[in-house]
Amino acid sequence: MQRSTPYLAVDIDVLERNLSAMASTAAGCGAVLRPHAKAHKCVEIARRQLAHGAAGLTVATVSEAEVFAAAGCGDLFIAYPVWASPARADRLRDLAGRAALRVGVDSAEAAALLAAAVPGLEVLVEIDCGHHRSGVLPAGAAGVAAAATRAGLRVAGVFTFPGHGYGPGRREPAAADEAAALHEAAAGLTAAGFDATVRSGGSTPTAPVTAPGALTELRPGVYALGDAQQVELGTCAWAGVALTATSTVVSSSGRRVILDAGSKVLGADQPPWVTGAGRLPDHPDARLTALSEHHATAVFADDAAVPPLGARVRVAPNHVCAAVNLADELVVLTGGRETDRWPVAARGANT
Amino acid sequence: MQRSTPYLAVDIDVLERNLSAMASTAAGCGAVLRPHAKAHKCVEIARRQLAHGAAGLTVATVSEAEVFAAAGCGDLFIAYPVWASPARADRLRDLAGRAALRVGVDSAEAAALLAAAVPGLEVLVEIDCGHHRSGVLPAGAAGVAAAATRAGLRVAGVFTFPGHGYGPGRREPAAADEAAALHEAAAGLTAAGFDATVRSGGSTPTAPVTAPGALTELRPGVYALGDAQQVELGTCAWAGVALTATSTVVSSSGRRVILDAGSKVLGADQPPWVTGAGRLPDHPDARLTALSEHHATAVFADDAAVPPLGARVRVAPNHVCAAVNLADELVVLTGGRETDRWPVAARGANT
Repeated sequence: MQRSTPYLAVDIDVLERNLSAMASTAAGCGAVLRPHAKAHKCVEIARRQLAHGAAGLTVATVSEAEVFAAAGCGDLFIAYPVWASPARADRLRDLAGRAALRVGVDSAEAAALLAAAVPGLEVLVEIDCGHHRSGVLPAGAAGVAAAATRAGLRVAGVFTFPGHGYGPGRREPAAADEAAALHEAAAGLTAAGFDATVRSGGSTPTAPVTAPGALTELRPGVYALGDAQQVELGTCAWAGVALTATSTVVSSSGRRVILDAGSKVLGADQPPWVTGAGRLPDHPDARLTALSEHHATAVFADDAAVPPLGARVRVAPNHVCAAVNLADELVVLTGGRETDRWPVAARGANT
Repeated sequence: MQRSTPYLAVDIDVLERNLSAMASTAAGCGAVLRPHAKAHKCVEIARRQLAHGAAGLTVATVSEAEVFAAAGCGDLFIAYPVWASPARADRLRDLAGRAALRVGVDSAEAAALLAAAVPGLEVLVEIDCGHHRSGVLPAGAAGVAAAATRAGLRVAGVFTFPGHGYGPGRREPAAADEAAALHEAAAGLTAAGFDATVRSGGSTPTAPVTAPGALTELRPGVYALGDAQQVELGTCAWAGVALTATSTVVSSSGRRVILDAGSKVLGADQPPWVTGAGRLPDHPDARLTALSEHHATAVFADDAAVPPLGARVRVAPNHVCAAVNLADELVVLTGGRETDRWPVAARGANT
């Protein structure tokens, strides 16, 4: 009997091709690969990334680090300005005892708390290369490194996230910004006598256009599973979308059909430059014009066959990181047949 | 020791006031209240709604119905065009044996499957009153009722969702559309000899402007917890926002601070008419200008005090339904102190 929709499914053959391709991309630009596990949150996918030669994993939170450390990953970078509040300090100490741990820092205040929690903890100074989120400007890196060193942390270099590369035509300039900012920040650290061995950056859009030697470490995440945003950015072909939601047509009116995969399955990410609330890989000309919690409105072109009531339709979410975080498990497909189910072990791991 | 952020907290006194106010609103327009449980997904909140006189619960999916039936709620309406696929048919039959069950239908095809799954199941015909999602136009209601009756279902009336009332200045016309569409559809059913006892509608924005006698049943959901969208629509005061995410300032640059509650805690809903990615109830002039998975960018006005690094800041999500579905539990506050934790029992219940 067919499984009730909606559910998320991963094509394992597509996944493996994606992992292999990014391993080659990283090697081609002379960087080690440290994939961001927030984009899949699955131990099984992390293990495959490590088998493809990844140096370790990137995570966003201490609780994500706890999940992957418990699964045996011994090398973790929390790419976030971790605030070591008392409740988090004990957890960081435990983690540092179980894995090679590195975290992000962008202020003297955060450094002091981190050092009190885990004396000698290895940190990378976060740099703002143009995304204007967390991080200091390159000229401020040495100041943070000095504060971190005084507090008793071990500075190993710098990291950034070129998030402003998400948008049509933006990835090349963002990759250039990233390289320049990491270079300037690392030079500042070196000039002030600090270790700047690590220059970590990278994202799925910018990784393929990263100049050889610009970074020592790449941290893309979405590339493993792909999503509609990457297709619309031109950084992923339809054949590279490994994760889709299987949905059912539950209502129909002319060229408009309602699918039962809504924002509680796909996520609601919709930057201004995308064409809709997700895409239909098997109907690339259709558009998802609206999304409610349990309804996706798909509109088909005048000359297209419209899937009938009860038909199953695959939906590529706009942002796979949001979609996996809504699911308890991923259905695994091999050659189109269900062969396994993988728990989304780090779903909801936000602290 | 303070709990690690981010987490969702519910102020129980605000919740109780909201439940009481909506019970009065429903009574004032002569309708029974059947709150939508998708907006909280918590058994404890559902019980309080029933204690305030609700006739039963509305849910969006069979799996949500299963959660609330297991918790003892004996009267459930699945306000959705349920597609009774073989995998879902058995579950519907089980549910119908445990609770008074009613579901939505908007096509002859769906009616045939529902009748095969649960002969004699009670249904409401879904009407499109202007939101243009699922549902038939009022003139088509009698046709669906006839098909449902022929298939062996028991038609009890009509329902709609005035979702086009979400937007500044839109709730009054949407409530008028809703009343007119339900009236026309019910008249069509009656004229064709079908039961049209139930005229069910309502949403948090439209409920307070629903004309007495226009509906027999109101199904608002968000009102229980409130959210930033409702504040910006003018349908909820800050004092009515019962659920907030507690976050920490983890990075700071001038008048911009980064909070650790991102889209994986708040959800990413952001319709064009809102002022940002959520709001800060204790800093109503600040704006959330960007949201990543684990970062909210808050910008403060020139003359406002900016919360320092490490400060805890409450964030009201734009759409509370999305936020609760991302959490495993809600921290319960009484008089500002943590007194309990409620599991989000129906989190992820999408099938």
